[in-house]
Amino acid sequence: MKEAPSDASNVSHVLLSRAGFMRRVGAGIYEFLPLGVRVLRKIEAIIRGEMDRTGALEVLMPALLPADYFKETGRWDVYGDVLFRLKDRKGGDYHLGPTHEEIVTDIARREIRSWRDLPKTLYQIQLKFRDEPRPRGGLLRGREFVMKDAYSFDMDEEGAQASYETMRKAYTAIFDRLALKYRMVAADSGAIGGSKSAEFQVLVDSGEDAIVACTSCDYAANVEVATVRAEAEVRATPGAPSVERIHTPGHGAIDDVAALLGVSRAAMLKSLVYAAGDQIVMVVVRGDHDVNEVRVARATGASDVFLAGESDVEKATGAKVGFAGPVGFRGRILVDRAAAAVVNGITGANDTDYHLKNVNFGRDYSGEVLDLRLAVTGDGCPHCDAGRLASYRGIEAGHIFILGTRYSQAMNATFVDEKQQHRTLVMGCYGIGVSRLIATAVEQHHDDGGILWPASIAPYHVHLITIGHDADVLRRASELYQSLGAAGVEVLWDDRDERPGVKFKDADLIGIPYRLTVGAKALAGGHVEFKLRSESNPKMAELLSVDTAASQIAERVRGSQREP
Amino acid sequence: MKEAPSDASNVSHVLLSRAGFMRRVGAGIYEFLPLGVRVLRKIEAIIRGEMDRTGALEVLMPALLPADYFKETGRWDVYGDVLFRLKDRKGGDYHLGPTHEEIVTDIARREIRSWRDLPKTLYQIQLKFRDEPRPRGGLLRGREFVMKDAYSFDMDEEGAQASYETMRKAYTAIFDRLALKYRMVAADSGAIGGSKSAEFQVLVDSGEDAIVACTSCDYAANVEVATVRAEAEVRATPGAPSVERIHTPGHGAIDDVAALLGVSRAAMLKSLVYAAGDQIVMVVVRGDHDVNEVRVARATGASDVFLAGESDVEKATGAKVGFAGPVGFRGRILVDRAAAAVVNGITGANDTDYHLKNVNFGRDYSGEVLDLRLAVTGDGCPHCDAGRLASYRGIEAGHIFILGTRYSQAMNATFVDEKQQHRTLVMGCYGIGVSRLIATAVEQHHDDGGILWPASIAPYHVHLITIGHDADVLRRASELYQSLGAAGVEVLWDDRDERPGVKFKDADLIGIPYRLTVGAKALAGGHVEFKLRSESNPKMAELLSVDTAASQIAERVRGSQREP
Repeated sequence: MKEAPSDASNVSHVLLSRAGFMRRVGAGIYEFLPLGVRVLRKIEAIIRGEMDRTGALEVLMPALLPADYFKETGRWDVYGDVLFRLKDRKGGDYHLGPTHEEIVTDIARREIRSWRDLPKTLYQIQLKFRDEPRPRGGLLRGREFVMKDAYSFDMDEEGAQASYETMRKAYTAIFDRLALKYRMVAADSGAIGGSKSAEFQVLVDSGEDAIVACTSCDYAANVEVATVRAEAEVRATPGAPSVERIHTPGHGAIDDVAALLGVSRAAMLKSLVYAAGDQIVMVVVRGDHDVNEVRVARATGASDVFLAGESDVEKATGAKVGFAGPVGFRGRILVDRAAAAVVNGITGANDTDYHLKNVNFGRDYSGEVLDLRLAVTGDGCPHCDAGRLASYRGIEAGHIFILGTRYSQAMNATFVDEKQQHRTLVMGCYGIGVSRLIATAVEQHHDDGGILWPASIAPYHVHLITIGHDADVLRRASELYQSLGAAGVEVLWDDRDERPGVKFKDADLIGIPYRLTVGAKALAGGHVEFKLRSESNPKMAELLSVDTAASQIAERVRGSQREP
Repeated sequence: MKEAPSDASNVSHVLLSRAGFMRRVGAGIYEFLPLGVRVLRKIEAIIRGEMDRTGALEVLMPALLPADYFKETGRWDVYGDVLFRLKDRKGGDYHLGPTHEEIVTDIARREIRSWRDLPKTLYQIQLKFRDEPRPRGGLLRGREFVMKDAYSFDMDEEGAQASYETMRKAYTAIFDRLALKYRMVAADSGAIGGSKSAEFQVLVDSGEDAIVACTSCDYAANVEVATVRAEAEVRATPGAPSVERIHTPGHGAIDDVAALLGVSRAAMLKSLVYAAGDQIVMVVVRGDHDVNEVRVARATGASDVFLAGESDVEKATGAKVGFAGPVGFRGRILVDRAAAAVVNGITGANDTDYHLKNVNFGRDYSGEVLDLRLAVTGDGCPHCDAGRLASYRGIEAGHIFILGTRYSQAMNATFVDEKQQHRTLVMGCYGIGVSRLIATAVEQHHDDGGILWPASIAPYHVHLITIGHDADVLRRASELYQSLGAAGVEVLWDDRDERPGVKFKDADLIGIPYRLTVGAKALAGGHVEFKLRSESNPKMAELLSVDTAASQIAERVRGSQREP
């Protein structure tokens, strides 16, 4: 396609559509065309290989599920609109599987009897369905997608830790073989619950997840759960100037006030009023920091927190939004550690159009001091002494969890231990977004001309281009096609009746790692042209002898396919 | 499992459940356990290999489909309750794909522009969903199942014939490699429509389809469409005895009358009253033949025909059911060719408790003479002079069609031909029930002890059994396991703490082709025991030298895996 689809908002959606890897069938629903299926199957084979290597056993659970299983664990009610629900001809309740914890737990409670059957890890590569409120990004967040999900069953927490560790290593091997730049990061385990979890974040500037990682050690975390090294706290001395009221008419925003007063944002105390369940709390962070709402939720015990509306702010502070502050605030105050360390800070006066300066924690206001902010570039690493954190954006492509007994307890999945006692299975779960990985790879590997597939998942190894219809050109190309194929090299031959420029442009768009061109001119000298897709300078094509080209290329391809 | 599931009514359902290949999740919904997945993947690989060899391109269309596509062809309304329908969170109409003609035709109308793009065949291996009124037979007729569906696109009917022929050959190769006894049979193309179609029927006594096949030539057909060689017609001579009325009180059934009068059923004329749309017709077949209702429908132009109810029969004939006959019947009469040839036949008198004898077609009654009966064993083959038909039962495992322009016309899928004219694509479609094949293979290959997998689709090649826990036994078994694995032989090692009898019984149940037993007794003489699953005599185990066993077995396995 010459044009990108009108709803394509990210580069992978544009390139995968234009190059013919996939097409939209409905909102968040895509079909894979031949090139796309080849990439999908290669990713599946890598994942399957590493799963099998761990001793995990492949199963295939249905996509269409009777409601009974989700009703057993309560998820039928909890899941809400994300669940595609339907009725069969007899009026029975069914849904499409968004994930398969219940079904695999049902397998376990029927098939696992004894401690001798443990540990056991089952996995599948199967379609998943989620009725996302805003499907977007093509394959990045679809409503039907391919996922690899694995589930481990162990006797106890220690066993679960070992299974988790096995999967962590397998995931590392998978992402290494996919040749993607990624970080394994500590993650919030969100609604699924569980005691330990990590995300495999593929590093992409356009990624929707914000993560921080240490530049010295291997600490990395989703910004929602990242901690920072506690810096030495500087408290205002008794001799500090006392609080002063200043007129700041119409200047409510941090940036405006800082500009008006000629101070840095770090000298300001940002005071935000939150609704946390049925409480109203004030959260104070430094002016250059952002509130980590996950932590506010944890501190307040509320399941969800959000900024209070204008009228609630006015009711709580007596001032318009922009002029709130902790001094004299009659309510619960949560103070971020860095904000508590600010000396002679500036903050709202709880009076419209007025701020206060020389505000110091402990002297002028008090509150619970906690880690409440999002980590930022330059923060000290919490795990090593010297390191500083850097910010990245990523796409979550894998997620591993220790689930504990959340599902096994609800569904009574037990085993008999060595002492003939019935005990509840301890579970882990491990997902990879298989179709999402296709888009993720493109987000990370592309240039202005199109995709640059990593060798391990490229749809073909070699893009063969013939120029013109000269009989000798076609004969030689056909020989090369045959001998490369016989050597196990996958060749896509562009034998269309198109101009060379069109063919080269399409080859760049499709992104196969090696390009082999057979034309009358080079052939007259006994040569064919060989070029890497990653080499942007067209003059950097190598001339290979037509007689040895096939074996040379086969050798290169074999080298590129070697497992790391 | 020791016991078969309570709802298992056929042998494949019992054996696949007991041996742990699959489990029921809901009515007509099954999950595949590790052994089952291995068989599924092997079947898929064989199908994929043969599809790719024809140049067909693999795609993957969604399972969840917006209703728009089926609405375009009218199938949204026609499909009825078999379609699983659902709504998304915005109230949009969706359904699960029971088959993908519309979606693939949509691909074609977007991607195929010119005659240069043709011919093109696309295939996928994907889940299908049909809300069957009576799901049954385990994997034989489920509501969610795995199917390979392929669709060909050609310029004209001649091209479509060529694509069909290519697929016919590929299907033959697939079924040969699956090592199933099957017949390719002429089929009624049913509701999908189209000009040419054939079924691949796997021959199984319990099969739900009745087919006939010639014992001399390759003619084979679903009994619904089978024709028979027209036998020489013997007409009653003018001097034949005239019609005589006989009292047959309470004897309405063919068998009863034949017994009462001491004649064969072939001497009787079975006269059945059918409702064909809004017509009432009488169909006359020989007493030992059955009516082919598909042909009655075709002769009358009705979309559906069924036996008239008692009151309609009485109204039409003036007699109770069992006493109808063509003599004096005042309505349309369809006479099967064989019935018309009956000399001095016996039939109902259209008078309760009375029959007529010496009835001859042409003299005593008339009607339209047609082929109206189901073929039976012994009928003459319609395709060769000498052959006779034999009856079989089969399970439909594949179906190939020429679809024509049914979908491409409705969806405006056209191409530009050499003369720059827009023309409608001519389509074919080609299905294989992938998960059904698993059950079909078991229906054909089993004995009292369990399954006997064909080598090409067995979950493993070798079932390794260790007897006891002797250190030397375990060491030797482990060496064999390793060296067989290194030679590409797939080994399932039963290292459970069970008695030998239990292990042998389970091995028979699972049905892996080769069994290798390592026990202290044979090992003392330097031997291990090797036995074919198909060999029922336990004494027929071979003793192999423990040192050469791995290489000997690897050679045997390679031989069994060779493509036919």
